[in-house]
Amino acid sequence: MRINQYASGADRDLNGERTNVSQAVIRRLPRYFRYLRELIRQGKMRISSSELSSMMHVTASQIRQDLNCFGGFGQQGYGYNVNYLYARICELLGVGAGIRAIIIGAGDLGRALVRSPMFEKRGVDIVAMFDVNPSLIGREVGGVKIRSMTELKSFCEEIPVDMAVLTLPKESVDEVAELLVENGVRGLWNFTAKELTLSPDARVIVENVHLGDSLMILNYQLCNPTDRDETK
Amino acid sequence: MRINQYASGADRDLNGERTNVSQAVIRRLPRYFRYLRELIRQGKMRISSSELSSMMHVTASQIRQDLNCFGGFGQQGYGYNVNYLYARICELLGVGAGIRAIIIGAGDLGRALVRSPMFEKRGVDIVAMFDVNPSLIGREVGGVKIRSMTELKSFCEEIPVDMAVLTLPKESVDEVAELLVENGVRGLWNFTAKELTLSPDARVIVENVHLGDSLMILNYQLCNPTDRDETK
Repeated sequence: MRINQYASGADRDLNGERTNVSQAVIRRLPRYFRYLRELIRQGKMRISSSELSSMMHVTASQIRQDLNCFGGFGQQGYGYNVNYLYARICELLGVGAGIRAIIIGAGDLGRALVRSPMFEKRGVDIVAMFDVNPSLIGREVGGVKIRSMTELKSFCEEIPVDMAVLTLPKESVDEVAELLVENGVRGLWNFTAKELTLSPDARVIVENVHLGDSLMILNYQLCNPTDRDETK
Repeated sequence: MRINQYASGADRDLNGERTNVSQAVIRRLPRYFRYLRELIRQGKMRISSSELSSMMHVTASQIRQDLNCFGGFGQQGYGYNVNYLYARICELLGVGAGIRAIIIGAGDLGRALVRSPMFEKRGVDIVAMFDVNPSLIGREVGGVKIRSMTELKSFCEEIPVDMAVLTLPKESVDEVAELLVENGVRGLWNFTAKELTLSPDARVIVENVHLGDSLMILNYQLCNPTDRDETK
């Protein structure tokens, strides 16, 4: 299974019709989500593609193309209805789909994530954390109970879980990933340093977050300042 | 200033010669770093491009092309010397360049990051944390002292800082980014939900980490499972 890459290909639009929305467009949608959310916070009702363009530092033509992929939300000379556009993007991105998540690993990162408003803002409900450390089990963090890994199976039988956030030590990640898939978890958000390699028939979606890679890119740029594009 | 994108263009090789290494190759280097590190841990001295290919799920030809960009470390029929390759990639990525970093914001995420081994593994030294919360100032986390934001200027005068990790509330991020740049910080690793927009002449490199965007892509895939590429 290839990870951190997504197929370009056919997607479905809001009416369930197959369209040719590339995964590149899908990857850009969360950014529209953030900017539209901010416009709503500012009480802005309507925005033109050129205004959005200068806010987001992409061309107006790119914006029109991206948004037209989903059925053309804008009106010529009138712009986009911010609330409508936001609602549509939320729908496409599964905000409001009632996604249930668990966090595996109640260490520093797991505890930081469970307290973050990020999940709630995106409609993801953290229903439990799991750990193997007896001194953590039974405690509550951010209103979420830390349970023993031995409870995982029975928990998932009672409350179907869509997604697991992996913040456990990398040594255990393969084994735990298998266990999660066996228990019906369909999405893995992987923060461990280990890239997940699941069997090709595993019906699971993996999104790897390699913070260390991002740090190294910044390192590289700091050490090679002459390679920066000064026109940016 | 465009962010989260890097120019493709000329870079320098190890002898300081200009080469045509694209930023796409640079973006892939941290992944080689991780895999080589793991091979060293396993005591592996030598690896062929085909072995590396099957480990990393990229073509052997891609690997040869990537590594040849930096002066051809491999030998035909002999493979790559793992330690040598690792050392070269470390050098390119600035591991060992003595990069000094500070963390702005000693909240959950800042505290999780300072305790993470990620920085040390990549040769980045966290020299201080800063916050505005009086109840945190003076405390130590992961061996690093939390200082008041009012000390930032004098601290940077005494100990030049290369990089700041931004885990503060997004409302303050623009102002703090300006202050950091004024005080000689050249790289910003931005974890806030706000994308940084610095003036075009600001001599600073920004690497935005949008965890929420990554989460939303996983959401999307969970809600649109038919769009997965089943060949992966």
